[in-house]
Amino acid sequence: MRRDNSLLSPLLDCAHMRSLVLIGHGSHLNGESAGAVYRYAELLRSRGLYDEVVEGYWKEEPSLRQVLKTTRSTDVTVIPMFISEGYFTETVIPRELGLGHQGPVPPEGIARVLGGKTVRYTLPYGVHPGMADVILARAHEVLPDLNAQDTALIVLGHGTTRNENSSRVIYRNAERLRASGQFAEVHALFLDEDPKVGTWPEVVRAPRVVVVPFFASEGWHTLETIPEDMGLTGEVTVFPEHPHGPQTVYYAKPVGTHASVADVILHLAEEARGASERGGDEDRTHAEAWAAFLALAREGMRVGEALITPHGGLYELRHALDEGRPGDELTTAVTPEGLRDLTRRDEGGHHRPVHTFRNLPRGWRAVLSEADLPRGMHYLYPSVVEEGYAHQHQTLRATPWPTTARRQTGIYAKVQRATPKQVETVAKSVCGRCLKTRLWAGEKLPRTFFTGVPGALPCPEACTYLIAEVREAVSGQREQDAGSGK
Amino acid sequence: MRRDNSLLSPLLDCAHMRSLVLIGHGSHLNGESAGAVYRYAELLRSRGLYDEVVEGYWKEEPSLRQVLKTTRSTDVTVIPMFISEGYFTETVIPRELGLGHQGPVPPEGIARVLGGKTVRYTLPYGVHPGMADVILARAHEVLPDLNAQDTALIVLGHGTTRNENSSRVIYRNAERLRASGQFAEVHALFLDEDPKVGTWPEVVRAPRVVVVPFFASEGWHTLETIPEDMGLTGEVTVFPEHPHGPQTVYYAKPVGTHASVADVILHLAEEARGASERGGDEDRTHAEAWAAFLALAREGMRVGEALITPHGGLYELRHALDEGRPGDELTTAVTPEGLRDLTRRDEGGHHRPVHTFRNLPRGWRAVLSEADLPRGMHYLYPSVVEEGYAHQHQTLRATPWPTTARRQTGIYAKVQRATPKQVETVAKSVCGRCLKTRLWAGEKLPRTFFTGVPGALPCPEACTYLIAEVREAVSGQREQDAGSGK
Repeated sequence: MRRDNSLLSPLLDCAHMRSLVLIGHGSHLNGESAGAVYRYAELLRSRGLYDEVVEGYWKEEPSLRQVLKTTRSTDVTVIPMFISEGYFTETVIPRELGLGHQGPVPPEGIARVLGGKTVRYTLPYGVHPGMADVILARAHEVLPDLNAQDTALIVLGHGTTRNENSSRVIYRNAERLRASGQFAEVHALFLDEDPKVGTWPEVVRAPRVVVVPFFASEGWHTLETIPEDMGLTGEVTVFPEHPHGPQTVYYAKPVGTHASVADVILHLAEEARGASERGGDEDRTHAEAWAAFLALAREGMRVGEALITPHGGLYELRHALDEGRPGDELTTAVTPEGLRDLTRRDEGGHHRPVHTFRNLPRGWRAVLSEADLPRGMHYLYPSVVEEGYAHQHQTLRATPWPTTARRQTGIYAKVQRATPKQVETVAKSVCGRCLKTRLWAGEKLPRTFFTGVPGALPCPEACTYLIAEVREAVSGQREQDAGSGK
Repeated sequence: MRRDNSLLSPLLDCAHMRSLVLIGHGSHLNGESAGAVYRYAELLRSRGLYDEVVEGYWKEEPSLRQVLKTTRSTDVTVIPMFISEGYFTETVIPRELGLGHQGPVPPEGIARVLGGKTVRYTLPYGVHPGMADVILARAHEVLPDLNAQDTALIVLGHGTTRNENSSRVIYRNAERLRASGQFAEVHALFLDEDPKVGTWPEVVRAPRVVVVPFFASEGWHTLETIPEDMGLTGEVTVFPEHPHGPQTVYYAKPVGTHASVADVILHLAEEARGASERGGDEDRTHAEAWAAFLALAREGMRVGEALITPHGGLYELRHALDEGRPGDELTTAVTPEGLRDLTRRDEGGHHRPVHTFRNLPRGWRAVLSEADLPRGMHYLYPSVVEEGYAHQHQTLRATPWPTTARRQTGIYAKVQRATPKQVETVAKSVCGRCLKTRLWAGEKLPRTFFTGVPGALPCPEACTYLIAEVREAVSGQREQDAGSGK
């Protein structure tokens, strides 16, 4: 078992390192979307099996394009935190990570060597056989004395006409649990395909019925659609007049938020590693970047809107506008997670999907050890140290807008139609709120915060927030054209 | 003649000082609205007749509530920069300045002693008899050889059914110019009342016709409405078939932007001062605040998002995020006006009606003398030094929201109906973008930038930007109520 302390002695402890990366969808609008990924990352960190556990997102930061740059070791296992296979796990994530793969991921996952790192990409956690145990755990939570005599289990999936894999997983789990002999009956039912959830009174005979939603998280479906379709009024609902006699339905919480998903993730990661037991080395560029950063932090520094002040071996981070405020006027965090939670919203209470927007809230400080400082920075300004250092050493490659646009698929494919003027107009409004300098649009950045300019951060590529706004602009334009008969 | 240098030797040169304040409407949306006031302030400053010329606005900063705090002398003359009397000159400005006066302003103006200052409030420049000369100057610009034999003059006003004063001024000017004997005919015509501008072919007989719009500035009326109503195609339009024979119409620029309006302003100000020739003293609190500020600036300081660095008797101001950037990477201004123009828009190109919103652009620096630094600060963060100093000495009085709301009239009167929750919701979104701390909502501010906290600026009263947003919220609510049949 390894502990997350190698940064204290990078030269002594630089081999056999392993990084685990959890990939979530995230949201430009909703600050709670990343919550489940945060929680599993924290759980897995506390188990200490990996030298680091890093999060990455499609619509938050660190982005899919940045996240591999932020890992400390050359041995990286990437888990898509999705309940089923589909567009994100098969198209978006492999593409954005640069895996050179599209389409279904084989059971053993995909392994690539990228920039000197061995990157293993697995199936989403939801398709792992271990999920049967999670379903069982959820069932036991809501009905501890469930048994093979009088209890039926319904595994309830979304189902979809677009991807048959999602229902196959439900059937497989139902099959497994049926074989376990712990239930009188086991049924697989669906919201969006046959057999539909509304048919349960016709198919379930047992007097006690446990319903476990095979969903990633609590949401509209688990809170509204399912209770409505089944006639449930709460966690326990009694149906005295049912065709097969009185029945009591026990409604469990969704599987995707159960703590034991952490075990599934670990199994998935270990299986992906296969025979490779050795682990990797510390990534040299990464180590250099952080050594350079720590050398500056030890003298006290400014980066973006933040001020870093050394205090007897610890580091205090706060908003530079709060310089000079006594500590007791500020809310204090002493962990990277605390720092993350204090800076997730701006002063108006709005979610901050792009961390380098110039809306870092004030009124907080974080006091971190040197070992925790990199993770604190990772939450404050994801990948900024890695990209800033690379830019300083002329190794940061900018991706021009046309390349980014051509890569887009699905609802974002239409950004390829945006005119340069449209992109520039949107960028002016979006990037005008951001600290970063748009290298991808040809802007120059002679210095960075590494050479004393706090606000000088490179932006090598358009972010998904900008892409989404360009899409809006293109869509708006088309509506206008349609409206004017063009 | 006096020059603006008394700050260099405040103790020697503290008597017989005079401050001139120009009041404009300003705009929350349009950055060009304040342009005319800027220009006249600069013209009058260059004439050196007043120790300072200060601007204040209804919808920009310094606001009407702040502007008197920012004047350096105890002898203050306030000129409303409006073309005619009306709601703003008779209701809004006197109320917001705290003059204790409502309704028509007598020809000699209003004089009050407020906070130890003698404040004289005049009629708007547009009603001054000197405007006849401005009309004449505009006419000569477009037709230098105008004469009493063949040239008619049309003085063209807006006219309105709500305020008869506005047409009375046009008639008076027409009368004066008729009496001057320089035109064959002089007519007063209007856009919105009889005699309408469209009737000109029936009333004007002279072969050459000069049209001078009695408007404050170039805009929709002067660029669109008037040319359309008169059939003009440009500065000179020939009408060969007119009832009284061929006529040529010369279309002049609006009076309100002519340089000689500066003379009208000076006449108005001198008449308001009447027999009081002595002038005032330097305002003591004001002098103390700036002395304290300069003492800090001499050591180098941060205030809001700005960094002030002393350099051999000069002061360099820049965005703190640009700290460490070589001067040649930044656009350099060497006057307060240059600083103003470089910081009028955010990095997205949007107008900044509230200067303490956290969107100060980067990429500039201003190098100012100590004599110019106060005016530079006045443009950067209006009234922040005066209010910060007062707060530091417990003399800044906060105005709670209900008091601000009750004072509102016209379209803003409805903000009195806003619930505390509505005000808080809007404030969260608006004030969340602002550096200032809302003393008016009970927030505490133990320190300010005077004691080393750059971002700590007091906000004693809700600004007009917030008031306008609260009004939107109240209006939106009513529409929703109406829509739902409430």
